Amino acid sequence: MTTNGNASDSYPILRLVESPADLRKLPREQLRPLADQLRSFLLHSVAQTGGHLSSNLGTVELTVALHYVFNTPDDRLVWDVGHQTYPHKILTGRRERMATLRQFGGISGFPLRSESAYDTFGTAHSSTSISAAFGMAQAARLKDEDRWSVAIIGDGAMTAGMAFEALNNAGVAEDGRLLVILNDNDMSISPPVGALNRYLAQLMSGQFYAAAKNVGKSVLKPVPPLFELAKRFEQHAKGMVVPATLFEKFGFNYIGPIDGHDLESLIPTLENIRNLKGPQFLHVVTKKGQGYRLAEADPVAYHGPSKFDPAVGITKPAAPPRRTFTQVFGQWLCDMAAEDERLVGITPAMREGSGMVEFHRRFPDRYFDVGIAEQHAVTFAAGLATEGLKPVVAIYSTFLQRGYDQLIHDVALQNLPVVFALDRAGLVGADGATHAGAYDIAYVRCIPNMSMACPADERECRQLLSSAYAQQHPVCVRYPRGAGVGEEPLADLVPLPFGKGELRRQAQAAPAGQRVAVLAFGTLLYPALQAAEALDLSVVNMRWAKPLDEDLLREVALAHDALVTLEEGCVMGGAGSAVLESLQRLQLQRPVLQLGLPDAFIPHGDPARLLALQGLDAEGIERQIRARFGFWPGTAAVQA
Amino acid sequence: MTTNGNASDSYPILRLVESPADLRKLPREQLRPLADQLRSFLLHSVAQTGGHLSSNLGTVELTVALHYVFNTPDDRLVWDVGHQTYPHKILTGRRERMATLRQFGGISGFPLRSESAYDTFGTAHSSTSISAAFGMAQAARLKDEDRWSVAIIGDGAMTAGMAFEALNNAGVAEDGRLLVILNDNDMSISPPVGALNRYLAQLMSGQFYAAAKNVGKSVLKPVPPLFELAKRFEQHAKGMVVPATLFEKFGFNYIGPIDGHDLESLIPTLENIRNLKGPQFLHVVTKKGQGYRLAEADPVAYHGPSKFDPAVGITKPAAPPRRTFTQVFGQWLCDMAAEDERLVGITPAMREGSGMVEFHRRFPDRYFDVGIAEQHAVTFAAGLATEGLKPVVAIYSTFLQRGYDQLIHDVALQNLPVVFALDRAGLVGADGATHAGAYDIAYVRCIPNMSMACPADERECRQLLSSAYAQQHPVCVRYPRGAGVGEEPLADLVPLPFGKGELRRQAQAAPAGQRVAVLAFGTLLYPALQAAEALDLSVVNMRWAKPLDEDLLREVALAHDALVTLEEGCVMGGAGSAVLESLQRLQLQRPVLQLGLPDAFIPHGDPARLLALQGLDAEGIERQIRARFGFWPGTAAVQA
Repeated sequence: MTTNGNASDSYPILRLVESPADLRKLPREQLRPLADQLRSFLLHSVAQTGGHLSSNLGTVELTVALHYVFNTPDDRLVWDVGHQTYPHKILTGRRERMATLRQFGGISGFPLRSESAYDTFGTAHSSTSISAAFGMAQAARLKDEDRWSVAIIGDGAMTAGMAFEALNNAGVAEDGRLLVILNDNDMSISPPVGALNRYLAQLMSGQFYAAAKNVGKSVLKPVPPLFELAKRFEQHAKGMVVPATLFEKFGFNYIGPIDGHDLESLIPTLENIRNLKGPQFLHVVTKKGQGYRLAEADPVAYHGPSKFDPAVGITKPAAPPRRTFTQVFGQWLCDMAAEDERLVGITPAMREGSGMVEFHRRFPDRYFDVGIAEQHAVTFAAGLATEGLKPVVAIYSTFLQRGYDQLIHDVALQNLPVVFALDRAGLVGADGATHAGAYDIAYVRCIPNMSMACPADERECRQLLSSAYAQQHPVCVRYPRGAGVGEEPLADLVPLPFGKGELRRQAQAAPAGQRVAVLAFGTLLYPALQAAEALDLSVVNMRWAKPLDEDLLREVALAHDALVTLEEGCVMGGAGSAVLESLQRLQLQRPVLQLGLPDAFIPHGDPARLLALQGLDAEGIERQIRARFGFWPGTAAVQA
Repeated sequence: MTTNGNASDSYPILRLVESPADLRKLPREQLRPLADQLRSFLLHSVAQTGGHLSSNLGTVELTVALHYVFNTPDDRLVWDVGHQTYPHKILTGRRERMATLRQFGGISGFPLRSESAYDTFGTAHSSTSISAAFGMAQAARLKDEDRWSVAIIGDGAMTAGMAFEALNNAGVAEDGRLLVILNDNDMSISPPVGALNRYLAQLMSGQFYAAAKNVGKSVLKPVPPLFELAKRFEQHAKGMVVPATLFEKFGFNYIGPIDGHDLESLIPTLENIRNLKGPQFLHVVTKKGQGYRLAEADPVAYHGPSKFDPAVGITKPAAPPRRTFTQVFGQWLCDMAAEDERLVGITPAMREGSGMVEFHRRFPDRYFDVGIAEQHAVTFAAGLATEGLKPVVAIYSTFLQRGYDQLIHDVALQNLPVVFALDRAGLVGADGATHAGAYDIAYVRCIPNMSMACPADERECRQLLSSAYAQQHPVCVRYPRGAGVGEEPLADLVPLPFGKGELRRQAQAAPAGQRVAVLAFGTLLYPALQAAEALDLSVVNMRWAKPLDEDLLREVALAHDALVTLEEGCVMGGAGSAVLESLQRLQLQRPVLQLGLPDAFIPHGDPARLLALQGLDAEGIERQIRARFGFWPGTAAVQA
């Protein structure tokens, strides 16, 4: 492949492709060079913007082949998770806009229906693609439209139960045109998790191949050195004498595995499939990072790099980055595990993202990566807790949504002491609305027996994790992506008091009738303290969204004329609403301004900028308080 | 079996068993008569209390065998769903308390940790058992305790993705003592759903048996006439030459199928398994209703009967029962489907419960039973909606919790017009806390783009379903179990205005300073109207929890001195909190009393009694309003 710069001369064929229709006009022999140019463009583009790399390098040929064989967008492609769709975006009219990738106002890192007719279904959470594509296929049947619906799903995403629910349902529908493509790229990364991954490896093993060979129907091609394990089977070689695959047991016609970088395998196979009936399952083997030596060697490091020089690769940043909340959690987990052997740690396939690498290394026996399986993760933790162990489930706020029923039904109803470490609470930046942890306070606090802590900084994060761990009931601790203000955590494991907040700033000279207190939940405490200097506000660090510190609330409400609630979470039903409920219980009437995330999905962009746009930086907080109460010179209150 | 009355003489062996330890002292030849007595006791007990019958008749022998072979409660039994645990309850010291089953203060219809040490894990929602038992097995490993953890799961529950997540995770854990028992009883009921059921049938088909026979390792016993399809295999006959089962692909040692009513098969097989290592999977075939002719013939009718005479069977009630909300929905669905061919109906395995039998009969092409698969159901609906169809997902409030992430990520974020018909919203009675639809307003209204309608009666239910269907975005319509006040639905499909409520009663003579308005969301409007007569309240039928009718709210708030919010849902984050949020946005300070379900799980019992206990009947509403505001003679306000 070419890696020599980004000049348009480097992409003479790619430049011809403004849409898949252009692609389909190309003579077939130009597809290989097109794929090479596409890969090169992709590499240089991501090197300039940052973004997902390894997975996209792995789907170059598959994307070319799909748009070449299928009549997109009339045929529907649904990309599971969707962070592997950069080649798809480049080929569907968004080549130039790749320079804006994941930036505010720019194109999304995931498929987005509002962005392109070729993005048939928005994804980002895993394992939704088969359900969606099956829906499209059934719609086509009902509307008597002759089109294919294709789901492209990775082997990791196949471990989520939702994918099996969809297979189970779709496998008996013989009258739709549904193709599921398993993009199997787990060959080159760290220990596969679960029986399914082991099984997929077995499908590609010599034994399986030998069995097929014996029936005399396989067509063996020269095996490219890259995929020494990948064997190719013709469609008719499966399922009769060779052991039936798991996917056939679900009613699918299983085809594969085939080499997902070999257009000469992909295109004829896909063309063949277009003439088949009933649910089809194509097993494609690809390599993450394919075609870029550094990414092939370390696909995890190149999974989602920041800007880098393709010729040099990723370099270490000059200054070490600030400690993140994730790292604070990881350190706390190890320290508490060393102190208490009952502690067990659970992650649904997020070891790195949740900061559990060190815990895994030091306490392998007490570490459980359950796969992309949030439902199971939560109930598995409940099972461990019934036996007196102390499970800590590390899970992104947005992914706990996947285990919501289990949280209510298996953990809270039985009042089991499970700690949920909710990472990525609030806005997450480049990943956008699909990954925002905006709803957790609202959807957790309505559950009986649950508690919810909201640390304001790194030190409190560690302390409140210890507080959560000390309880005899389930507790969530929510903290945002990235770093906080940099408050150094203490070395000990001393908890903060359960359910208690603290007054952080007392208004100095506000006259009676104009005394305003901000009740902050979480890291927005710090911009609130800044705003307080300008407006002479009192500021309360509430720390717990549930239970709410009603004693403190009463005290503060009695000493002030108006209140402001502040949280990096949805206003509807959030911690501010808990304050309103308590004030009514206390029979205290006060004007309250609720600040937080609005009732709208917030697109991707720089997190600080997004917060500012929502008026949740210091300046915005000050501005909103001024506008609402108008106690200060030069501003008048806005009356409804 | 004996069916001649309930005299204790009928159960001479059963009376000896006060605990499983007693059972294990019995000579093995007494187990068959014990099982017969247990079945007879069960039948007469359920005939007197009502409750689940068919499933429990099917698990009599399996329960006897499990407690006989395993050292319960030290060995852990986790019963999936748990409505088949009556034999288990009878054998674990709760025989006498069976007379109180599912009644207020009596024993639960499901396993409950607080009820017995033998109830190791509370269940009721399906497919949690493998995750929980795997957690227990891993805990035993970590604590170096030598015990078995056994999950007993039905074939229906196996279709939920969560069960596969657990299999995938547990199948690679070779060092725990985990046994999964598949209680396969779908042979005798209506069309099985999905590929897995088809596959299980195939496992029991002649072909599979023949293959095993050819390898000369099967042990064929005389096949009882009841199970002409069920074949028995010894443990060592599987997996080598016969096609490997799906469960072996997940890493389990598959044993079966065996006859689940034959103690001479069950006990040796279970004894054999106790000596094995690694994850074990036993496939047991049982018959729902086993041993009671009427239930065998119609297991669906005897799934959960009310009181009946065992000698006669279920008889039709003299007066036809009142029309339920479920029936109103079913009728609306058919009428709207006749009007609009874009309508498609989706149920996660709840055709009867959700009132979709007639729709299925009349519109089979547009009817989708996706299995116990709520996650898939929601995203499948989203897929259908992207193609211009109009999906209506009929789902119990409590089960939508299973599809919460999909609701946010696949439906709401893409703003797709899907209607969710949320049945069983509020308290559900005999099924208890696990089935209560208490949280839906709170967990739905925090999601952008979602709306939520709360019909007050049958007529409004139909009208608001039409309103929901007319929108271009997702809408939930929540309605309770059973019948309402009996307002006859109109025949037409004319919607009510979107997001608008109505003033239903104007206070007549309340003096200034004492004017109170009740804002009712849903069916509690009617007891509120009753209370209003006594207290001369205004009453508003809000109809929509989201969007809230802020124009009406402003008007009412300005004309009254105090407000009461009322909903059959959790107070925390519920519709009343939406009112508080709006009042603050409107800058109107009013004392508000929030009435609804408390921040606690509410146990089973008669729904009317449970509502009264929460102060949500007319008398309780009146009492609470008097106590809070004290405007009326003879009562004083309670001050905080």
